[in-house]
Amino acid sequence: MHALVTGAAGFIGSNLVDRLLEAGHQVTGLDNFSTGFEEFLERARGSERFRLIRADLLDAAALPPALEGVETVFHLAANADVRFGPLHPRKDLEQNTIATANLLEAMRVAGVRRIAFASTGSVYGEARLIPTPEDAPFPVQTSLYGASKLAAEGFIEAYAEAFGFQAYIFRFVSILGERYRHGHVLDFYRQLRSHPDRLTVLGNGRQKKSYLYVQDCIDGILLAMEQASARVNLFNLGTDEYCEVNDSVRWISEYLDVQPEITYTGGDRGWVGDNPFIYLDCSRMRALGWRPRVTIREGVRKTLEFFDRHPELVIRF
Amino acid sequence: MHALVTGAAGFIGSNLVDRLLEAGHQVTGLDNFSTGFEEFLERARGSERFRLIRADLLDAAALPPALEGVETVFHLAANADVRFGPLHPRKDLEQNTIATANLLEAMRVAGVRRIAFASTGSVYGEARLIPTPEDAPFPVQTSLYGASKLAAEGFIEAYAEAFGFQAYIFRFVSILGERYRHGHVLDFYRQLRSHPDRLTVLGNGRQKKSYLYVQDCIDGILLAMEQASARVNLFNLGTDEYCEVNDSVRWISEYLDVQPEITYTGGDRGWVGDNPFIYLDCSRMRALGWRPRVTIREGVRKTLEFFDRHPELVIRF
Repeated sequence: MHALVTGAAGFIGSNLVDRLLEAGHQVTGLDNFSTGFEEFLERARGSERFRLIRADLLDAAALPPALEGVETVFHLAANADVRFGPLHPRKDLEQNTIATANLLEAMRVAGVRRIAFASTGSVYGEARLIPTPEDAPFPVQTSLYGASKLAAEGFIEAYAEAFGFQAYIFRFVSILGERYRHGHVLDFYRQLRSHPDRLTVLGNGRQKKSYLYVQDCIDGILLAMEQASARVNLFNLGTDEYCEVNDSVRWISEYLDVQPEITYTGGDRGWVGDNPFIYLDCSRMRALGWRPRVTIREGVRKTLEFFDRHPELVIRF
Repeated sequence: MHALVTGAAGFIGSNLVDRLLEAGHQVTGLDNFSTGFEEFLERARGSERFRLIRADLLDAAALPPALEGVETVFHLAANADVRFGPLHPRKDLEQNTIATANLLEAMRVAGVRRIAFASTGSVYGEARLIPTPEDAPFPVQTSLYGASKLAAEGFIEAYAEAFGFQAYIFRFVSILGERYRHGHVLDFYRQLRSHPDRLTVLGNGRQKKSYLYVQDCIDGILLAMEQASARVNLFNLGTDEYCEVNDSVRWISEYLDVQPEITYTGGDRGWVGDNPFIYLDCSRMRALGWRPRVTIREGVRKTLEFFDRHPELVIRF
């Protein structure tokens, strides 16, 4: 298979690139390096089966060359910064919705009709049904991030109907692991490295979170694309576990061997649009035989170990 | 109230402008006249409380003057051409999604935080639950039109959460009545005026459709905005009736006193993305005391009478 991975220099994208190369595939990686890291592609660039294209999905003219010879697109490029959406309302629209529409249109013109898309459990808004299945009641959006990803899902589905695309849409919980570079685990790590005696936690620390380890996430994507064959294939990807922010505070403190004094900013969510609880019903994915192999706690540890191995990156994250 | 109506020179928009002026409100109408008709605003232009702005929502710089003094925005501007979406895939994205995002951002900057939005029952895709309630199972999009409207809904909801907007989102069935100017009633009228002996019907004629009369639609919008006070207020707007395309063929033939030979193009839908059946559960709207006053058959007749009164417009539709 020749795959195009957008967001190839990002957290999940670069891990996926490595996995696809290991499996013997040819991979074109596309990234605008707005948040991607050259270092994440070091291993990939050692392969003759890897080609890197520096381009922005908002530059439609750059896309035809990237799609040459490609059979499947893994669309992971995105503005993944959920929290600061309201500070730049245009960014989610451009980088998540318009970028996806540009990609779809370039695929249609190039005759590439198979796409996997990294969506998010945020599209469920404040779900009334928990754990939340793929066909939960029609949600109301609560974040620009979720809205922009749902918009992208909708355009992908419409392209499937109108132009015979085959689509794999994955709604992720938060993902952890090697090359993870934003979110509260990084925030806490940084704070505690800088001042081991104190930690500020957004919200009341009781926010429940479900995290999936990045390699388990990629296992799920690849398995679903092997096994599911509908025109539009929708899967939640998460774990049957969850933790509270306070659990990860404890795990991180234990890992770093510190006992910080904790200050809570208060309230049941960390920021506007933060969901108090994203917890997905993944039985559709599990029915294919998929199981996460790493617990949330182990995922946090692997992430911290990665930080320890790459202090030079943590500074730049 | 000072209202901004986008798409003011369109079918529903111009009828709404007239109703708001009749009710004593001040109205700013905005239209790019890409599909709007000057003639639809003739009555409005006789009012001192009406102001017309020729501008495109894609031209963000044009929006601040349009929002001056405005308290409530009725956002009806759209590409309403569902059928030909696949011929110009960019159009729905631009005119329905990006235009809405531009409007929201201009509203945020101007401090205008109340919006009514004309969405569509098409967002339910091929609904499994019929009649379809507002909280139907999470739908899969089947048209670029539906996808682009759902995207707009999502951004409106996210603005409500992030910036304290109050939103009224109305998912319409097809609307009929004075100034209606595309869809199968117009198509059949034109065909039968041109050659009364024969009629070509897309699909098998058994497609079920639910139509609402435009004044009933406007009654519903205005009532909901008076009575509902949540941050995000979502309402289906349709009738408890439906008809088959063949019923409207019969009604139109009777009205025109013709007996055409009918050719069906076949299949259970008229075109790619056409829903075999959009039939909405409107009990949420009805609980506010709203009832449509005009049956589908009467709505079709009123539309045909409008065509008869305005042959000069029908030619240009």
